[in-house]
Amino acid sequence: MRVLGIDPGSKVTGFGVVQRDRSEISHVAHGNLELTRSLTLAGKLDQLHRLVLEVIERHAPDVAVVEEVFMPSATSPRSALVLGQARGAIMAAIGAAGIAVFEYAPATIKQSVTGSGRANKSQMKSMVRRVLDLDTDPAGDAADALAAAICHAQAGRLATLEAIQRPRKRTSRRSSRVAVRRVR
Amino acid sequence: MRVLGIDPGSKVTGFGVVQRDRSEISHVAHGNLELTRSLTLAGKLDQLHRLVLEVIERHAPDVAVVEEVFMPSATSPRSALVLGQARGAIMAAIGAAGIAVFEYAPATIKQSVTGSGRANKSQMKSMVRRVLDLDTDPAGDAADALAAAICHAQAGRLATLEAIQRPRKRTSRRSSRVAVRRVR
Repeated sequence: MRVLGIDPGSKVTGFGVVQRDRSEISHVAHGNLELTRSLTLAGKLDQLHRLVLEVIERHAPDVAVVEEVFMPSATSPRSALVLGQARGAIMAAIGAAGIAVFEYAPATIKQSVTGSGRANKSQMKSMVRRVLDLDTDPAGDAADALAAAICHAQAGRLATLEAIQRPRKRTSRRSSRVAVRRVR
Repeated sequence: MRVLGIDPGSKVTGFGVVQRDRSEISHVAHGNLELTRSLTLAGKLDQLHRLVLEVIERHAPDVAVVEEVFMPSATSPRSALVLGQARGAIMAAIGAAGIAVFEYAPATIKQSVTGSGRANKSQMKSMVRRVLDLDTDPAGDAADALAAAICHAQAGRLATLEAIQRPRKRTSRRSSRVAVRRVR
């Protein structure tokens, strides 16, 4: 299974692709989708849409994972709108490619990658680097995208293990399903 | 000049196309872009993106107009995010078509169409119907989209008239420019 993680931002969007073969998770690619500053808003959103489609065409992921937006009630509606616009262009591209999207809460991703839901940025980066056997720490947005992809790859692995070990225990299957929210 | 007005919504998006020939503004088309309920979020945003591109291909507008989002500080960040996602897919499609986007505040559109910035929904609908010589009042979202398009068509007409009548009066030209905000 190949997983594309995306960390949407209004300026830079990070992406990361990982591959899971049985219990092994390996690095495929990561990077930032940078938008041309001189473009209009519509031009930038079109560029973002195209870049996401390009990444999907190049790396052929089976699923995409986007971090659930953490929205404290203090978030200004304006910044939520701006972030929403970037997410809209990204999700439209994923929809065009016809692959499923999963969403995880930031704490779930941290927990899955580092073992703690409160890990800080630098702990996350170094764990992503270690899990994927990279030479250097990946840059911020791409690290978050890789972490989201790892989280889904591990959730899938755990779900498979659980299905093998406890085929009829409905509660445990349901509890692992709670963490995984397919975006409808 | 042909103007496409769009009223983005997370469920239904209205559109309206008007044509300005000299001082005459006429109706070209209007309707709602309805999304298939059973689709996932990514599927819906892709559908919205495609439907906007189809409208642009069919009616070949020169510019697009989107109502500026009215965001009272009480707006929940969650609803701002959801509306932003729809706007993102729409703007990406307008960007792909390569046409310019203009944004007007709701009060500017009301003022332009009815003569009052505080007109209510039904006053707006009946003025849109009268200006465009329609047989019936257009439905809600499409009426708002037509109103946005009329506003831009009239702003363009006024700007032209002013340019002819007062070619060197910078203040009046600037004041008409304030109302028109090209989205960058």
